[in-house]
Amino acid sequence: MPFVAPTVVRRVVQNVTTETPDLLAVEEPLEIRLGYGPAQDRQQRSLVVTMRTPGVDAELATGFLYAENIIQQPADVLSCRHCVQDAEKEGNVIRVELRPGLAVDWQRLERITVSSASCGLCGKTTIEAAMAHTNGPLMADFSVDSAIVHNLPDRVRQLQTAFAHTGGIHAAALFDADGTIRLVREDIGRHNALDKLIGAAFWKGWLPLSDCGIFLSGRIGVELVQKSWRAGVPLLAAVGAPSSLAVQMAREARMTLVGFVRDDRFNIYTEPDRLITQASAPATPPAAHGH
Amino acid sequence: MPFVAPTVVRRVVQNVTTETPDLLAVEEPLEIRLGYGPAQDRQQRSLVVTMRTPGVDAELATGFLYAENIIQQPADVLSCRHCVQDAEKEGNVIRVELRPGLAVDWQRLERITVSSASCGLCGKTTIEAAMAHTNGPLMADFSVDSAIVHNLPDRVRQLQTAFAHTGGIHAAALFDADGTIRLVREDIGRHNALDKLIGAAFWKGWLPLSDCGIFLSGRIGVELVQKSWRAGVPLLAAVGAPSSLAVQMAREARMTLVGFVRDDRFNIYTEPDRLITQASAPATPPAAHGH
Repeated sequence: MPFVAPTVVRRVVQNVTTETPDLLAVEEPLEIRLGYGPAQDRQQRSLVVTMRTPGVDAELATGFLYAENIIQQPADVLSCRHCVQDAEKEGNVIRVELRPGLAVDWQRLERITVSSASCGLCGKTTIEAAMAHTNGPLMADFSVDSAIVHNLPDRVRQLQTAFAHTGGIHAAALFDADGTIRLVREDIGRHNALDKLIGAAFWKGWLPLSDCGIFLSGRIGVELVQKSWRAGVPLLAAVGAPSSLAVQMAREARMTLVGFVRDDRFNIYTEPDRLITQASAPATPPAAHGH
Repeated sequence: MPFVAPTVVRRVVQNVTTETPDLLAVEEPLEIRLGYGPAQDRQQRSLVVTMRTPGVDAELATGFLYAENIIQQPADVLSCRHCVQDAEKEGNVIRVELRPGLAVDWQRLERITVSSASCGLCGKTTIEAAMAHTNGPLMADFSVDSAIVHNLPDRVRQLQTAFAHTGGIHAAALFDADGTIRLVREDIGRHNALDKLIGAAFWKGWLPLSDCGIFLSGRIGVELVQKSWRAGVPLLAAVGAPSSLAVQMAREARMTLVGFVRDDRFNIYTEPDRLITQASAPATPPAAHGH
C-alpha cells in the first residue's frame, strides 16, 4: 500500500482557480492483534486500532508495544505478520506473536484500549505510571550544539519523502550529538511517526537511545514525552509547543525538552545543560512584538 | 482549571540565550462516564479517556457523544457533572446522565473504546459506518465567497484566547455564509476542539449545521470529516492538508473539503460549487516553486 494517493484539486490563489493533479498522504486503519500463550494453546487478542499511513506496520506495531512496556527486546517477538482473511481488510490487520512465556498484564492493557493516552486520571498518576515503565530519570550526559538544533527542521524535511509530495504528514527523526540524522519515519499521526521510529530502533538493537535526541515535526503532548522517556531519549525537540503536562513529565524524567524550533529560534523548557549555547545575554525587558 | 499554565523558558535566538516567563497550553486527562438505565436502577459505564484542555468539559463530552451517535438532542441528557471522589482526579471525570429509556448500543461502544477512529478496518467500511449515523449525503445549498475563506485564519486567530498566549493550541470555528464567526473552541487536541464546537452547537439547538461551515487550524483526518458530516456541515476548511481517507469520505458525504488555507491560497478537494470564485484561469503548466 503506498504512502501517497493521487487526486485532482482546484487550487485557488486569491480569486483565480486552476485545476491540477496533487498527492494526498494515505490514511488507513490498522488493527494490532497479539498472539500469546503456550505453543500448544495460542490465543489472540485485539489490542488497538489506529489510523496510520501504511508502509512499515511491523515497526509501528512493535514500537507501540515497546512504548507500552509489553515487549522489551526483539527476542520477545516471534513474528509480525499481516492477517489475510478478508480482501477489504487486507494489509490493515497485523498480528504480533509474542514469545511463549512472556507475561502480559492484561488488566493494564484493558486500560490501554480505553486510552493509550493516560495511565491515570490526573497529571500526577500519569507521570508516576510512565515512570514505572522506565529506568527512572534520564542521566545521560548527551549534549548538542544549538546550531545543530537550529538546522533540524530543514535537514529532516529534506529526508521526508512523503511530506515533499503532500505537505501533510508528520515526521519523527533520531539524531546524534554531531547532528547526523540516523533515522526518519513519517505518518499522518504524530504518535504513529514516533512509534515507527522507536520500533525501527528496537529492531536495530539501539534501545535505550541514551546517545540520541528525537526531533518531531509537530507539537509535544504528554504521550510523546512518555514514549521518548521509555525509549531512554535524553533530548526531545519539536517544531511546535509542548503542553503543560509534557513539561511536567519531562521535568520528572530529567529530559531536555525543546519547543518552537523554527526561524533560528527555539525554547528550552527543562534540563538546559544538554544544549551548548553562548553565555546568557544580559537580562532585558520582554521585547515588543515587532520587526 | 485554567486554559494556560505559567512556566519559565530559556529562549535561544541563534546562539544567544535569555530566560523569560511563558505560558503553556494545559493538557489533562478527562474520563467520560455514562449514567444510564431506569431511574430506580441507574448504572454507570466508563466510555473513554481523552487528553484535553480543561474548560468546557460538558460541551466536550456531549459533542463527543453526539458525534458518536449516542445522543441526538438536549432532551437525551439529564445532566453533565464532574465527579468528586478523589482530590487528585477532581475535575478530570465527567458523568453524563442519559435520559432513562434512551437505547444505547453497547456493542458498538465497545468498538469506540478500542478506537474512536474507525468503525471498520478498511476505508470502505469506515465510510459506510459513518454514513449510517447521518442523514446521507449533504444537500445543503450553502455557498461562500472565496474572500471569506482567505480571511478565516486571521479572523479565527484573533478570537483564540489560548493560542495568543501559548502558540500551541488548536481551534475549531463555526462560520456563516456571510463570514460571521459564530463560535470558536480551542483544545490541545484537534478532535477535542471540534467535539467542543459541536457540543456547544448541540446545546444551542443549532444542529444540524446545514447553513454553516467549519474551519480547523490543523490537518484534516478522516475522523474530523466524520464528526462534521454527523453534524450536517456542508463545508469543512482547514489550514492543513487532508488525508486520502478524509477526501474519500468527503466525496461520499458530498461535503466541500478545503485544505491549505493560508497566504491567500487554498485547495478545493471535493464539491467545489459551494465556493464562489472567479472563472477558472486558462490551463497552464504547473508553475515552478518560486517567486
